[in-house]
Amino acid sequence: MAEDTTEKEFGALTKALSEKDAAEFKNLAQNMHYADLADFYEELAEDSRALFAEFVGVKLFAEVVPDIPDTLVEGAIEHFSPEDQGELLDELTDDDLADALQDVSEGAKERYLTLLDPEDKKIMDALLLYGEETAGGRMTTRYGRVHKDMSVKEALEALRKIEEETRSLSRIFVIDDEGCLLGKIKLRSLAFSTWDTSITELMTPVQHDVLASVDQEEAMQMFVKYDMFTLPVVDEYKRLLGVITHDDAMEILEQESTEDIEKMAGVSGEQSEETYLNTTIAQHFKRRFPWLFILALLAILSGYVMLKYDDLMQGAYVLALYLPMIVAAGGNTGGQAATMVIRAMALGELDQGASARVAWKEARLGLILGSLLGTCIGCLTFFLIPALPESFAKLPVGLPVGMFALIAAISLALQITTSTLTGAMLPILARKVKIDPAVVASPAITTIVDVSGLVIYFTVASLLLPSLTQ
Amino acid sequence: MAEDTTEKEFGALTKALSEKDAAEFKNLAQNMHYADLADFYEELAEDSRALFAEFVGVKLFAEVVPDIPDTLVEGAIEHFSPEDQGELLDELTDDDLADALQDVSEGAKERYLTLLDPEDKKIMDALLLYGEETAGGRMTTRYGRVHKDMSVKEALEALRKIEEETRSLSRIFVIDDEGCLLGKIKLRSLAFSTWDTSITELMTPVQHDVLASVDQEEAMQMFVKYDMFTLPVVDEYKRLLGVITHDDAMEILEQESTEDIEKMAGVSGEQSEETYLNTTIAQHFKRRFPWLFILALLAILSGYVMLKYDDLMQGAYVLALYLPMIVAAGGNTGGQAATMVIRAMALGELDQGASARVAWKEARLGLILGSLLGTCIGCLTFFLIPALPESFAKLPVGLPVGMFALIAAISLALQITTSTLTGAMLPILARKVKIDPAVVASPAITTIVDVSGLVIYFTVASLLLPSLTQ
Repeated sequence: MAEDTTEKEFGALTKALSEKDAAEFKNLAQNMHYADLADFYEELAEDSRALFAEFVGVKLFAEVVPDIPDTLVEGAIEHFSPEDQGELLDELTDDDLADALQDVSEGAKERYLTLLDPEDKKIMDALLLYGEETAGGRMTTRYGRVHKDMSVKEALEALRKIEEETRSLSRIFVIDDEGCLLGKIKLRSLAFSTWDTSITELMTPVQHDVLASVDQEEAMQMFVKYDMFTLPVVDEYKRLLGVITHDDAMEILEQESTEDIEKMAGVSGEQSEETYLNTTIAQHFKRRFPWLFILALLAILSGYVMLKYDDLMQGAYVLALYLPMIVAAGGNTGGQAATMVIRAMALGELDQGASARVAWKEARLGLILGSLLGTCIGCLTFFLIPALPESFAKLPVGLPVGMFALIAAISLALQITTSTLTGAMLPILARKVKIDPAVVASPAITTIVDVSGLVIYFTVASLLLPSLTQ
Repeated sequence: MAEDTTEKEFGALTKALSEKDAAEFKNLAQNMHYADLADFYEELAEDSRALFAEFVGVKLFAEVVPDIPDTLVEGAIEHFSPEDQGELLDELTDDDLADALQDVSEGAKERYLTLLDPEDKKIMDALLLYGEETAGGRMTTRYGRVHKDMSVKEALEALRKIEEETRSLSRIFVIDDEGCLLGKIKLRSLAFSTWDTSITELMTPVQHDVLASVDQEEAMQMFVKYDMFTLPVVDEYKRLLGVITHDDAMEILEQESTEDIEKMAGVSGEQSEETYLNTTIAQHFKRRFPWLFILALLAILSGYVMLKYDDLMQGAYVLALYLPMIVAAGGNTGGQAATMVIRAMALGELDQGASARVAWKEARLGLILGSLLGTCIGCLTFFLIPALPESFAKLPVGLPVGMFALIAAISLALQITTSTLTGAMLPILARKVKIDPAVVASPAITTIVDVSGLVIYFTVASLLLPSLTQ
């Protein structure tokens, strides 16, 4: 239902744009959600984007800018004259403005900073000190804040003044003379109390705050765990600097999940804010090729192992039947283990001391998975192969079937046990040496355990078939 | 910092528990966050859990129950006598109560329903009609709601009555005589307006609502896209049934991302609410073994292809050097493509009509990735191998190096092109036939393109080396 509405709106916008009907276009745009307008803008060709900006005007366009993908922000601002640019930047809330300034080129950033009024410039200088992906870089400084000595009446008056420029007044924070965070009150407590009640009476303690310098992921984990609404951001003296709102937390969670998912599939580089379809082929290429190339080179190692054992393979080529399976089983179980561990780390479940517990768990799990799958495939081989017609790919040639079943079972059990442990421990090791755990997921682990799988298979086979090796 | 605090709190709780100091335990627990208490509860042995429940009492324990993993909920409620159970259930908010009732066994659910007072029972009967993972199953019926004919004064009085039992009053919805959704107002508009202002003057239109029957994922996508705060849930006549709050949306996003990540790694079955470390080995085994087994059986197909081409391999065993690479490159590029497409679908970027655009994009991308990587490996082979010492694994034996380079380049290009397309289209196909796209990600695609990779490599080799095949 919602999809149809948006499609209809897009159709009407396209019509107004092609007919160059500015009044109709603006009228339609005013009744749409900014996020949808940003989607529409993203899909347009360059000259149509300029028309879009001209038709809606600075004020409405400023609402759309925060929802435009990073890479398009500078082009979007540049639709306007320097004077209008100043007005546009002025319309943005402080966190959106800081985001926008971090998205544009260095030259444009300097130029835009000169367009700001002195007070905004000061706020920007402070916000831009923090990295884009830290709590400080994510916070807004426009939030509800009252002094501990106020009465409800004074607090309401103070809040009324900042009402328009404040995104959320649902949580109001109480500070002391030094600006330190003392507690919080709900707007409803103010609304439903008598005017002479003192703020300290209504105040409840703040259980969780976050340092401005910590990674945004840590802030997001607190939102998820504690069902938070607004997270106060403080400096090392507990002075309240700003707040992170729930919509930012949701955006962080979405971004971090997408980033992890992509890295786990061997897609490198920064996730683009553009949708999949609007991302250019060149960008997709740039993010996928590096890993493909590295993994291809690594895979030659597996080939080298295969060459090393050519006597064995020439002597009992029937071994080739289970070779892909034993190699792949390691990649599959390693990938599963790595995924579980990486996700647990991303959700803050595994602290630094947990590695021994993870290793112990996965070692046992690997042993159980490996022995069971090894037994299954061993039995299948022993009972099924003799029952197959002779013509079936010359199977029983070169090797007694019992021996073949034994080689398969032992190799599979060893490969799965070691690969499970490797898959679980590599992400933990990566974190220890400050590499993002997600990048050592599935494709990297698969390539590594492919090599070990071949070594295991060939070693087991040559131990059980000593006559076939030199 | 936060981690340290929690650790200290846990230490103190453990001490009080082991000393059976009920008063101290309750005192400590009262100053902690429910989510932390739930974590602590989860880590305890069964008899300590009973002590925990006894020490904190029904009222505080009711706050902890919503944060306890699904599988432990029934055991948690069963710590108490039937009478206390009634009180505990009564303390839960309606959406938490509905969740709890969906987590327990059928028998317990029937029994618990008889303990509710008639009004709560009626609400539960209504909420339990909706599936656990639908908008209706997620909503709460305790939200701010006023009638369109009220004044600000009347609205504030109405809201004051429901204040205690309402989670969020930041968005208040306006309904007509039939209970249909007309618009919304912010609490701050009420707080900062004169008492005789009419509600309709302050009301703004609701741009987005959701049908109770739609999947929770759709509701979550609206939260992400539109930076929402509270999403009204309606029936087909636009009657307001309840709201989904931001913390539920965040939980849905986290769950759906984790589910997708796990499915993409071939981990099947329902995600447990317990943390990774608290999930038993048996549960981990149950979720991982099925895919391992299926994929192992499928991988025998690859082995069968290898056996089929034994003449070729025996004739030019040097082909084994690039065999693992060509096979793996398909899995890697297919996994990348599948991941990008699956994530785009999860975030609602790809509607049903987009398949042709995806295919066109990935076909070109596959061709570029494949030709480039093929050329790289081809050149590397041609120039590097002759430069290597003779002893290096008998490389140049059996095949002119130019021919070997050509076979590698062509096979790699073909394998990457087809695998990229396969990886991108399989999830779309899966969605068309109502299979969750995430389950056809990486491991499944890898196994499929392994087979095609071998067929491609052997076919290319036998076409260029006709003398080696029968």
